Amino acid sequence: MTAWTRRAGRRAGTRAPGGTRADGPAGDPADALAEDLAAVVGREHVRVDDGALAAYARDATPLFSARPQAVVLPGSTEEVAAILRYATERGVPVVPRGAGSNLCAATVPLSGGVVMALTRFDRILEISPGELLARVQTGVTTAALADAAAARGLLYAPDPGSRTVSTVGGNVATCAGGLRGLKYGVTRNHVLGLEAVLPTGEVIRTGGRLWKDVAGYDLTRLLTGSEGTLAVITEVTVALLPAPEETGTGVAYFGSLADASRAVAAVIADGIVPATLEFLDRKCVSAVEEFAGLGLRQDAGALLLFGDDGPARTVAGTLARIGEVCTGSGALEVTLAEDIARSDALLAARRCALPALSRLGSLTILEDATVPRHRLAEMVDRIDEIADRHGLRIATFGHAGDGNLHPTCVLDPDDTEGADRAHTAFGEIFAAAIAMDGTITGEHGVGAAKLPYLADRIGTDQVDLLRRIKLAFDPAGILNPGKLGS
Amino acid sequence: MTAWTRRAGRRAGTRAPGGTRADGPAGDPADALAEDLAAVVGREHVRVDDGALAAYARDATPLFSARPQAVVLPGSTEEVAAILRYATERGVPVVPRGAGSNLCAATVPLSGGVVMALTRFDRILEISPGELLARVQTGVTTAALADAAAARGLLYAPDPGSRTVSTVGGNVATCAGGLRGLKYGVTRNHVLGLEAVLPTGEVIRTGGRLWKDVAGYDLTRLLTGSEGTLAVITEVTVALLPAPEETGTGVAYFGSLADASRAVAAVIADGIVPATLEFLDRKCVSAVEEFAGLGLRQDAGALLLFGDDGPARTVAGTLARIGEVCTGSGALEVTLAEDIARSDALLAARRCALPALSRLGSLTILEDATVPRHRLAEMVDRIDEIADRHGLRIATFGHAGDGNLHPTCVLDPDDTEGADRAHTAFGEIFAAAIAMDGTITGEHGVGAAKLPYLADRIGTDQVDLLRRIKLAFDPAGILNPGKLGS
Repeated sequence: MTAWTRRAGRRAGTRAPGGTRADGPAGDPADALAEDLAAVVGREHVRVDDGALAAYARDATPLFSARPQAVVLPGSTEEVAAILRYATERGVPVVPRGAGSNLCAATVPLSGGVVMALTRFDRILEISPGELLARVQTGVTTAALADAAAARGLLYAPDPGSRTVSTVGGNVATCAGGLRGLKYGVTRNHVLGLEAVLPTGEVIRTGGRLWKDVAGYDLTRLLTGSEGTLAVITEVTVALLPAPEETGTGVAYFGSLADASRAVAAVIADGIVPATLEFLDRKCVSAVEEFAGLGLRQDAGALLLFGDDGPARTVAGTLARIGEVCTGSGALEVTLAEDIARSDALLAARRCALPALSRLGSLTILEDATVPRHRLAEMVDRIDEIADRHGLRIATFGHAGDGNLHPTCVLDPDDTEGADRAHTAFGEIFAAAIAMDGTITGEHGVGAAKLPYLADRIGTDQVDLLRRIKLAFDPAGILNPGKLGS
Repeated sequence: MTAWTRRAGRRAGTRAPGGTRADGPAGDPADALAEDLAAVVGREHVRVDDGALAAYARDATPLFSARPQAVVLPGSTEEVAAILRYATERGVPVVPRGAGSNLCAATVPLSGGVVMALTRFDRILEISPGELLARVQTGVTTAALADAAAARGLLYAPDPGSRTVSTVGGNVATCAGGLRGLKYGVTRNHVLGLEAVLPTGEVIRTGGRLWKDVAGYDLTRLLTGSEGTLAVITEVTVALLPAPEETGTGVAYFGSLADASRAVAAVIADGIVPATLEFLDRKCVSAVEEFAGLGLRQDAGALLLFGDDGPARTVAGTLARIGEVCTGSGALEVTLAEDIARSDALLAARRCALPALSRLGSLTILEDATVPRHRLAEMVDRIDEIADRHGLRIATFGHAGDGNLHPTCVLDPDDTEGADRAHTAFGEIFAAAIAMDGTITGEHGVGAAKLPYLADRIGTDQVDLLRRIKLAFDPAGILNPGKLGS
């Protein structure tokens, strides 16, 4: 069974703790599990109904599905700790989950067991303009945090595409990226401290309220991107920035993606690192225009969206200069957004690339290969060549400034044979990215979807090391099994 | 024996591998060890003479000393791997070392064994303006990297105080900070990838050339700040930035440190996060003025040094605004440096705080407690109170913007009783910092010097977890024993 065609995980119940219970109630092991969970969180916060088990069998990743035995919604760190202690004692798999908006099957409960939904951890605990930080419970959405910060004149810089639904804890667990990564970095660059519960039940607090703190190994960053395999994150402290005075956006059309890629290199060479440098290939521009009718030019080979923020006296100058550099690099047309409304519309064009493509077929596989930015055009050419060879529709958009590409394959949902070809094609795409000093995932994560490719990227010695690290946190192997560290 | 008064480590030779050798040459175990090392690196790169063993018994931390049995200077990653494999097989302690400029006894060979000096790894392998990165061998000095980047119009942002002698590998191992941390962050924020050798001899490459790469746990950041206890770093890839167009500096004098601290808060509240916000207390200003004759005003209670860089059209405005905010917060006097020469002189004032204080007594204990920035004045008051109570001369300077204080105790070298009092006083200072949501070390590291305080900061559960992580990397416990993870 390949990762891409894995349509169901191991049968739920195969590791049912009830089967090994010595003192629990008799009867169906799943019932016994639910009883035990209810004893911790209350009956109203345990779900074993078909609807819930079906809903939590999937996340936003197509083709991956596996039903848990129960869904539990703890309301406090103490309840999380009690559940984990129980799970470690009984060998019950636990999959922590934020919004389930990840695209790498990181929260699919491959081994059954319990999905721990952290939805009830939804309080913003603190926004401190003096300390330039926020402290939130793990289940607060990214947008809620960003809005609360903005209301105090502050910026939470990471802005993953799923920000309106994704949770801060989920962002940390996957080290989410976004459209402002070029200038501001990714989630990792903004996390100051975590409260987390080890699989064995101990509550630890890593980092804290300081940017400078080297007391111990950097567990804050180790947990960031660990995809719920090492600990359950219950609280997050993040750094904020003073909100920029002004934000501006522009768009440049190019005859080819190679030209656009040259323009990106020329912008950097000019000493400009803007907040945003995004691209859409011709196929994406067409899809977005059909979807949203934003007045985008459809005869070009590529669209480059650029944006910056900062003091009012510099933003306009920077955007004008980027426009000049684009023109100098052969842009067919350059337009600067005349106002914030148009600026928002242009950013919306980029943000709706995925929904626009999704309309073309009901199965959309969005990938995440990344290469050094100067190899962007070369990589897109390779993707197109691979797609053509396998008879697949793959459009590509992404973060040009970061070299982070999102080749997106659109299929009919019943096209099993097409899904197999897509699986083969993406394997070739990952191999091509690695051969260009790139990686198999820039910001989406490994999860179950990329695990088969991990050793190709980091080597078997490092995969073995990840396993030993996992064991240092999770001796019973109960936390999100079948993912990173497995 | 307390950490502060530890004047010698375990006797060299107590874990001599020769003692357990089954197949080595007969005779002195130290000779046998030297022979075995020479077989890997050549006789000219092994030192067992008294001069070398005495020199490598210490780093820049006062009061800590322990002689190794041998010093080895490998010339390649393969030689590093061979030595580590040998050490793991025989149970020989190995302490990797850059310049030994750390201030936490991180490179003192407490258990004897081998000091592995990485001095020969001194090549800058690549500076890429297109990719905004540099790749260097671990032993390249921070200043050499910064200069090479500057020659290509690029900035390597971290600038620890020891930058002219410290190595990039050492900076990574300790997650070094510096004067530009407020705006640019610390070493961790600029490391993209590492080549490192595990204690068991495997060579791993973590991260790479990309800012966005989430393939696996974040070993790049885990090794950053791991103080040579998890792996030996042999190569470092760092991110560079376009060099700022202009850099400017100003100075403000205040009647008290409390006033200066209020000014720092007011600057941040004004939405400004400048590159540099440093302070010196009255005692430091006097010492610096006596030492360097820079024309600093000595009647003030505190000096605040501020600096920023960026586009020419913004730097002057930002500095002027900081000056206004300082005046509004009660500054006695504000001066903006009229040119780059004066700007450099002002930065030199801050950089020479340590040497200036060192002249006052030949034993200088420089510490590194850190608190949230709005508690800076409160913390300095606590330090002064503690110093007075113990009859100690402690002057404080540091990174006001980061809340990173460097209380510095000046003693006569033969004053053993004074050193004991200093030990007690710093214990109280660390406890005070922790009580203020601060930490025992902002940028210097834990090493042997802070290890006794680590559990107070992160808790025993987390200390235990560090030990398990250490074991995942170093099953035989040979790498820098007695430090982090011990």
